[in-house]
Order: sequence, then C-alpha cells, then structure tokens
Amino acid sequence: MNVYIIGVGLIGGSISLDIQEHFSEATIYGIDSDTAHLEEALQRKLIHQKATLPQVKNADIVIISIPVQASIKVIEHVLNEVKDDTLVIDAGSTKEQICQSIENHPKRRNFLATHPIAGTEFSGPKAAVKGLFHGKTNIICEVEKTAFSLQEKALELFKILGMRIRYMDPKSHDKHIAYVSHLSHISSFMLGKTVIEKEKNERDIFDLAGSGFASTVRLAKSSPAMWTPIFEQNKTNVIETLNEYIHNLQEFKKLMLQDNFEKIYQEMENTNHIKKILKGIK
Amino acid sequence: MNVYIIGVGLIGGSISLDIQEHFSEATIYGIDSDTAHLEEALQRKLIHQKATLPQVKNADIVIISIPVQASIKVIEHVLNEVKDDTLVIDAGSTKEQICQSIENHPKRRNFLATHPIAGTEFSGPKAAVKGLFHGKTNIICEVEKTAFSLQEKALELFKILGMRIRYMDPKSHDKHIAYVSHLSHISSFMLGKTVIEKEKNERDIFDLAGSGFASTVRLAKSSPAMWTPIFEQNKTNVIETLNEYIHNLQEFKKLMLQDNFEKIYQEMENTNHIKKILKGIK
Repeated sequence: MNVYIIGVGLIGGSISLDIQEHFSEATIYGIDSDTAHLEEALQRKLIHQKATLPQVKNADIVIISIPVQASIKVIEHVLNEVKDDTLVIDAGSTKEQICQSIENHPKRRNFLATHPIAGTEFSGPKAAVKGLFHGKTNIICEVEKTAFSLQEKALELFKILGMRIRYMDPKSHDKHIAYVSHLSHISSFMLGKTVIEKEKNERDIFDLAGSGFASTVRLAKSSPAMWTPIFEQNKTNVIETLNEYIHNLQEFKKLMLQDNFEKIYQEMENTNHIKKILKGIK
Repeated sequence: MNVYIIGVGLIGGSISLDIQEHFSEATIYGIDSDTAHLEEALQRKLIHQKATLPQVKNADIVIISIPVQASIKVIEHVLNEVKDDTLVIDAGSTKEQICQSIENHPKRRNFLATHPIAGTEFSGPKAAVKGLFHGKTNIICEVEKTAFSLQEKALELFKILGMRIRYMDPKSHDKHIAYVSHLSHISSFMLGKTVIEKEKNERDIFDLAGSGFASTVRLAKSSPAMWTPIFEQNKTNVIETLNEYIHNLQEFKKLMLQDNFEKIYQEMENTNHIKKILKGIK
C-alpha cells in the first residue's frame, strides 16, 4: 500500500506514525514544499521516502494536511493525477470552500473531506506524535459524494487511528467550528497581544502569570501560516463570532461601569455551566 | 503552634496540608462561614479542629483566604483580637483596597499582605491539594509595614511551601495582575458565554470542541463568589484592560473586513513571541 502524505507537519506526521504502527505493509511517501521539513520528517522516520507531487499517480491513499488555501490548489491537482481507486483525504480546518472547489471535478468520488479535531499549539514535523487522534472526533463532510468503497477504506483508517466519526454538511461545519475553534484562537491571540503591549518588561509578566494565564493564552503560540488562511476562508462566520464576542465583552464592561456586580455574578454562574459541556474533552 | 485558617477552600486547605506535612507540632484550626465546607474540611483532614472567629486570640498565625470583599472586614476584626506577636496573612488576588483598609490599624505591623499566584479553576475544600504552591510566585506587598520578626516567620513558611518571593507595591500589583490574571478570566468567561449562547445543542459543542477550546475556556469554570469581588475591587484597572482587549479585537475584525490577511499574519507572528514568555509557567 502506497500512502502519500502531502504536508509532513503535526497532522500529516502524526497520521503517518499511526499508519506505520498499524499497517506494516504500507510505504509512506512524504511531499512538502518546505524541503527542510521534508528532510526532518525523513530523519524522524515520519516517512519512508521523500517524493514529489507528480508521483501521486502511484498512490493508493493521499492525505493532504497543509494550510487550507494551499489545499484548494493541491487537491485539484492530486485528483487530476491519481488512479481511479485512489482515496484522497484532506484534513483542513475549513470545509466549505474546499468542497466547493472540487464540486464538479470528474474524480470528486475519489475525495473525502474531513476535519480531525486534534492538534496542539505546535507545528512542523517535530510536533508529530503517535496516538494524536485517539478518542478525538473526525468531522466528515459530504460523505455521500465519495465512492462507497473509498468511504469504507477511509473509515477503516479512522477506526485504526481511534477516531469518533461525525457527519456534517460543510456550511454547518464552518459555522460551528468558527465558535468552538476559530474564535478561541483569536481571543487567545488578542489576549497575548494586549498583555505583551502593556507589559514591556517581560520579567513582570513571567513572575505574575500563573497557570490560568498560560492556559488562556496557549493558542497564541499557534502557527500564523496555518491560521491566516483559515480566517480568510471562514471570514464571514469568524466575523459573526467576533461581533458576538466583542458585544459580550462590552456588556460585561457596561455592567462593571454600572457597578452591577450582582448581574456579573449571575453571568459568571450561568457560564460555569461550561463545566458540564467540557467534561470528556481532553 | 496554633494556626488558624479562615476560609478552608482551595487556597486555605492547600496551605493547611503543606503546614501539616512540615510542622508536625502545629495545630490547625479552621474557620469558615460555610458550615458544610468547614465540616468537609474536617472530614478531609484539612484541619484538626473547627473554630470560630473570637478564638483567633489564641493564634500564632492566622491565614485569611476568603473572597476579597469579606477579607477587608475580617482582617480588621482579626487584628483587633490577636496577640502582639501573631502573624496575620491574607492571600487575596487584589491588594490595594485591603492594604488601605488597615493602613492605620494599631496592629498593622502584625499583618502581611500576600498574593500567592497559585490555584486552579476549582474551589472549596475538595479542591485542596498538597504542594499547590511549590515553584509558584508569592507577591508580597508593603513588606516594610510588617514587623521584622513576623516578616521572618512568614518567609520561613513560604520557603517551606516552596514559593518564590517577589515584592511589589499594592497599586502596581493590582495594575499588572489585571492584565495577566483578571483579564484572562473575563476573556474566558465571555468566550464560554458566546459559545453557549450560540450552541444551544450542547452535543454539537462537545463533538466539535477540541483541547484548544477546552484550554481557552478553562477559567470560565471559576467561582463567581471569588471573582465578583475581585472585579469590584480592581474595577478601574480591569476596565482599562477590557478597553485595550476590546480595541485589539476590533482592530483584528477591521483587518478581516479589509481582507488584510498579510497584517493578520504579522499580528499573530508578533504574538507568537508569547512562547518565550510562557516558558517556565506550569
């Protein structure tokens, strides 16, 4: 089995490690526009061999795990090249534009749009770990547009990675994920920015900051190369979440200016309810 | 040695566990306005005996770890009662109003204002753990206003808890902590609120939310009883941080509306610098 991983970073590299563990017969080929990353992936044994894009014509499975604006071009190109029974999977954090872009492609049935909800704030080959996907959710979009036999092949792979499967349409995916993922990243980046701007003397931040700050600002370590195109592709939804978030912050500020601390107490108590929702997320 | 802990929750209970481990001769008395908490603290062996406020006249050390608006009344009352060589410590997250409130108290020299930067999003006696303070920072304010021998006694205690000491004036403490702690709590609470309001179907949040969301919204589990009075006491500084945070979010939104994703990339890259600052915070 020839598996081609396009983008040998956190996601691609981690999938590769799990595939190597469970499919001893698989040969993993790595493709990456960053030659240093590709070399590093080889050194770290994330891949068996380096490869280039035209070689995907030999692939049984192609996994595309690169920033989402690059994905759109690469998916089309890969579909043009692959065999009739090749499974092509993408792992991007936005789904609507990607699905639209290959809607009428003659090999649309070779493609499966997925979003594995897994990752860390780190990126690149050195961030790849075994078991990253275990117990995590994988959102599959437009499953009905993928050939039945390739659906089956993909589900077998996700089962081995230990993922729970949920099906959604791309539009709903992008809308919901804007709230639970994209907005968190912006709130975290802007929190980091606000504090850095104020605390020119870093030693002061370091000494006063506790685990609470570290947790809230963790996502501000994330890769701009990955996140800029996500915000671009999901612009409309993200702006909607930002409007609501800013509105809620302004209301909170208004309550403070009015000395309405009883209402502030209630607001926080209502939101404590998040405890119940978070149970089960690691 | 008679140690009285007023407020047997996360902070008071955790200090008590460490004192018990290191000072076998200490008898720990617990005082709490919540009788169920006090009983629970006794059952969990956080304290040796239950006590009431008038008994602090027998104390060698009094540790006050209750919500900050209650602290102001209780500290004064305790100072009225204690012996001349009793050390009285508070552990509140705001320092300016607390220090002002006992500025002219005849027993001011018995008091040491501290803020141990330690804790979790949980509260109450069940949240108390051994070693909570190990490697954490303890901010001490107006150290020069505490009697020399009692400074020494307090530092010995903090050394045993494993804390690093930093000295600050109360005004600077409240200003800096608004950025690195109070703002994080509001950003997290409002993120939780925004997502809960949108995602009425909780199952959807649960399935789509990953570890990134869980981390960013973690502080929204915090106790409203603890946090409301903190925001009230630190109102001016907190509103300033909120203004800056909201401004940064609005600027980010403006960049998105202008399709200036190059600038968005730069903003995120600049903030990535937080990595370096966070190193060393657990």
